Amino acid sequence: MRVLGIDPGSIITGYGIVEKKGKNLNTLKWGAVRTKRNQSFPEKLKKIYDDLCEIIKDYEPSVGAIENIFFAKNAKSALKLGQVRGATILALINSGLKTAEYTPLEIKQSITGYGRADKNQVRIMVTKLLCLKETPQPFDASDALAVAICHLHSAVFKEKCSNLLQSSRKR
Amino acid sequence: MRVLGIDPGSIITGYGIVEKKGKNLNTLKWGAVRTKRNQSFPEKLKKIYDDLCEIIKDYEPSVGAIENIFFAKNAKSALKLGQVRGATILALINSGLKTAEYTPLEIKQSITGYGRADKNQVRIMVTKLLCLKETPQPFDASDALAVAICHLHSAVFKEKCSNLLQSSRKR
Repeated sequence: MRVLGIDPGSIITGYGIVEKKGKNLNTLKWGAVRTKRNQSFPEKLKKIYDDLCEIIKDYEPSVGAIENIFFAKNAKSALKLGQVRGATILALINSGLKTAEYTPLEIKQSITGYGRADKNQVRIMVTKLLCLKETPQPFDASDALAVAICHLHSAVFKEKCSNLLQSSRKR
Repeated sequence: MRVLGIDPGSIITGYGIVEKKGKNLNTLKWGAVRTKRNQSFPEKLKKIYDDLCEIIKDYEPSVGAIENIFFAKNAKSALKLGQVRGATILALINSGLKTAEYTPLEIKQSITGYGRADKNQVRIMVTKLLCLKETPQPFDASDALAVAICHLHSAVFKEKCSNLLQSSRKR
């Protein structure tokens, strides 16, 4: 299973592609889509949408996992972030990918075992879990890799549950 | 000038197409994109995006005007509305349209001359201004027509200002 993790933001949108083969997690790519100050907001949305579609075309993930947020500083910033999330979700669904969403608590719990871990602790664990030689930069990219790992952990857990259910029905 | 006005919403997204020919405002189409309860949120976004792209293809407006909001009940509903706005803006920009945004105050002021007019007052004025035989249904559609009229009023005002500036420079 190949997962594209995304951490959406109007200035920097982090992304990371992680593949699970057997018990190994392979990192194929990470980075960030950066918008320019002099771009209008619709131009920024288009840049994020186009770049994500391009990444999906190049790396062919089967699932897109996004950080889900239920709070923001104020309604204005929530609306702004919502618009970027809308562009992100459309890039995934228009490219034929399934989408999955995880709260920051679920992601941190899955990566560090502690729901209130800070960004640096998440990055250290992402680097260890993916056996990377360098720490992923910027934080938005390591956060995106964290969402991808969270989805893979969750998929493994769901598969185990499904297998257990099936074997209990056979008895 | 042909304008597509949009009032975005996750359940109902109103739209209306108004054209200005000379001093006349002609209404080409109005209606609403409705999402289904059993659709996932990404499916709803895709439905809104696809339907708006289809309407743009059919009626070929040159500008898309959207209601801009800076407040919401809470962060959760702001994020939801933001995502729909993101899908709406992408439908416009990916179809090659310019986008314009107006606050509810600007729209109401432009249509009724009173920034705190209620939905019904806006609908009555939209019906009068566009010389419609029936009142546009639902409210989301009449709100969308109101945004389109607001943009046309604003465009006329900007043109007049530009002409005045040019003639004063010639003197």
